[in-house]
Amino acid sequence: MCAYKELTTSQRTIMTPGPVEAEPSVLRMMGSPILGQFDPEFTNIMNETMEMLRKLFQTSNHWAFPIDGTSRAGIEAVLCSIIEPGDRVLVPIYGRFGHLLTEIAERYGADVITMETRWGSVFEPQDVIAEIERVQPKIVAMVHGETSTGCVQPLKEIGEACRRMDVLFVVDAVASIGGTEVKVDDWYIDACIGGTQKCLSVPSGMAPITFNSRVEALLLQRKKIERGLADPSTPKSAQTRTIRSNYFDLSQLMDYWGPARLNHHTEATTMLYALREGVRIALTEGLAARFARHRLHEQALVAGVLAMGLQLYGDPACKLPVVTCIKIPEGLDGESVRAMLLEDFHIEIASSFGPLKGTIWRIGTMGYSCRKKNILHVLGALEAVLIRHGARVHAGRAVQAALDIYHS
Amino acid sequence: MCAYKELTTSQRTIMTPGPVEAEPSVLRMMGSPILGQFDPEFTNIMNETMEMLRKLFQTSNHWAFPIDGTSRAGIEAVLCSIIEPGDRVLVPIYGRFGHLLTEIAERYGADVITMETRWGSVFEPQDVIAEIERVQPKIVAMVHGETSTGCVQPLKEIGEACRRMDVLFVVDAVASIGGTEVKVDDWYIDACIGGTQKCLSVPSGMAPITFNSRVEALLLQRKKIERGLADPSTPKSAQTRTIRSNYFDLSQLMDYWGPARLNHHTEATTMLYALREGVRIALTEGLAARFARHRLHEQALVAGVLAMGLQLYGDPACKLPVVTCIKIPEGLDGESVRAMLLEDFHIEIASSFGPLKGTIWRIGTMGYSCRKKNILHVLGALEAVLIRHGARVHAGRAVQAALDIYHS
Repeated sequence: MCAYKELTTSQRTIMTPGPVEAEPSVLRMMGSPILGQFDPEFTNIMNETMEMLRKLFQTSNHWAFPIDGTSRAGIEAVLCSIIEPGDRVLVPIYGRFGHLLTEIAERYGADVITMETRWGSVFEPQDVIAEIERVQPKIVAMVHGETSTGCVQPLKEIGEACRRMDVLFVVDAVASIGGTEVKVDDWYIDACIGGTQKCLSVPSGMAPITFNSRVEALLLQRKKIERGLADPSTPKSAQTRTIRSNYFDLSQLMDYWGPARLNHHTEATTMLYALREGVRIALTEGLAARFARHRLHEQALVAGVLAMGLQLYGDPACKLPVVTCIKIPEGLDGESVRAMLLEDFHIEIASSFGPLKGTIWRIGTMGYSCRKKNILHVLGALEAVLIRHGARVHAGRAVQAALDIYHS
Repeated sequence: MCAYKELTTSQRTIMTPGPVEAEPSVLRMMGSPILGQFDPEFTNIMNETMEMLRKLFQTSNHWAFPIDGTSRAGIEAVLCSIIEPGDRVLVPIYGRFGHLLTEIAERYGADVITMETRWGSVFEPQDVIAEIERVQPKIVAMVHGETSTGCVQPLKEIGEACRRMDVLFVVDAVASIGGTEVKVDDWYIDACIGGTQKCLSVPSGMAPITFNSRVEALLLQRKKIERGLADPSTPKSAQTRTIRSNYFDLSQLMDYWGPARLNHHTEATTMLYALREGVRIALTEGLAARFARHRLHEQALVAGVLAMGLQLYGDPACKLPVVTCIKIPEGLDGESVRAMLLEDFHIEIASSFGPLKGTIWRIGTMGYSCRKKNILHVLGALEAVLIRHGARVHAGRAVQAALDIYHS
């Protein structure tokens, strides 16, 4: 017999940079009946999702579909499908997730050249362009919104330079997609990876990606039909540039998401329902209106945090609108504050990584979590918890400052 | 504005070898609120799921957790984490999914030696053992239940031989786990991969795996801490045997699923809720009772199919109880029959791959789809569709034969 009870989970106010609260209708859609992967009803959902993802990524690319895995699965799928051993890859790093790009590229045998700037700031595009000219890489891989530092990197000039020099430009937009502008075509991005559990308010477990015909041409050169699927009469593949991963092989995934519908994995049915609904909600709200909403609640949050007497971390000129980083006041145990927020107020905020561990808190304003009720709740609770910890704050001012923004 | 409507999906009777209908309570659990990945409530769910998976795999292994991807993600995670370039891997193949093991192992640089037997049969364990003795591989990788042919391979003697010769034994139990006996410890399996969307009736998108201390020891030799997480004062890793994939790096996943809770991916929250519930239902039913239920409905299905005048494909001695393969009568268009079943009766059955394409149908009896109502429905509908296609069948006998089984 089984002693395990049915699952019950608390209703948290999740103000981290992801995973955030899911859209209620996304959760409802996940209760929909399963369809077989080659059922015409299901392949129609696949096609519709591709159409919607193109709009989300603001691209006319044909290829836009999810990888069945979490965000880093999307990043690895793109990098491992285009990187061949010895390829030169330039990774400009300004936070943790730049290191992740490096880590993945190195594992697939790339000759990775990194450049770093101070965490809490971003690169001057001209500096990156100068390095591209010097290094002459095949690929430039960059993070758009760094959740670890709350910074956003301007990409258009870098993208233009890459296109001019025939360099592939790969962008990790996991944190920014659906929350702030990501213009794949306008910014000359060749392959872009988005996230579900952040500004789209879909549970973690899928990674929408898009790539253009420049990337497709490269993939077709590396293509190999899977054993056990190939017609027995076909001569054995002489492919020598095979993509290392089978699961992440974008050249095979094109045949699964394209009209050939060649069996690869079994598409994650329910997660696809969820993604379709999350993107549908984003497009129904309208991207411009959605980005403005994210900006409004960020302003209210920032006004409240400053009115309380706390200081922001990072260069304000490059602040990512969907993540706000706050310096932990000296002498205060940041983890104790986070624990009390969770236990007493059912609010989750985040700490950070590596060199920033213990020095900043990070508050997300993403997707469905990004709403007035949550902003006012987190400001009131943070003030109360800080007072309880003996910190000096301007009591009563934070919520008022946020209300001022909402009422102005 | 967005022209896309809310999702609606039909309620199908899914009698393929996966994905099958999800357990209703699994779908309900997927509507549960999101928890943060380091929320103690969530890490408790992770730990509980590990405990339950150990019972499902019938193992005392410490490590039992899901990979966030579909079944082949689990296979690739295991293979890429233990295979180093040049390692000799023996893959005995008796259907499509043996070819997949070969494909993945080759991509990660293994020196793969295959042996094949006729599709529709399995190996004599002694033949495999003789080949292991001859080849002296580091790893033997085999499929337990081949959905492509509906055959199940006895594993215990092969496992014993592997252990004796200090060979790692990796088993793909994607199709069999939760539907028929899979005894990881008794059969000396070192690493085993299960599937969610088949006999567990959880949507596709996660792959539960387990591995023992023999595998763990190898993983620890290849371990590398991720850049951006390592303490800046730690000297740079001198690891030269790094696992190629970051996403599938089991040595890192141990630190995510273990007490260190080192950030890797963001766990697929809702899919984990679903997996926990699916495994909970399996354990509550009881594995022995569950396997007996699968066997009962298989018998009813087979009785019906034979009474109709159709013939089974494959050696009955090694028939996989959760998949029944039927020869398509000569002159009949198998795809037209499948299409009519879907369109008129909302029933899905499967075709097959490679050399079997167009020659057999495959009917699954898996998980929640494996119930009396479905068996009677599919038999009645298949008979009607065959008559409609002008095939000669013994009208009226199939459902009666199944009822005989149920009433005996």
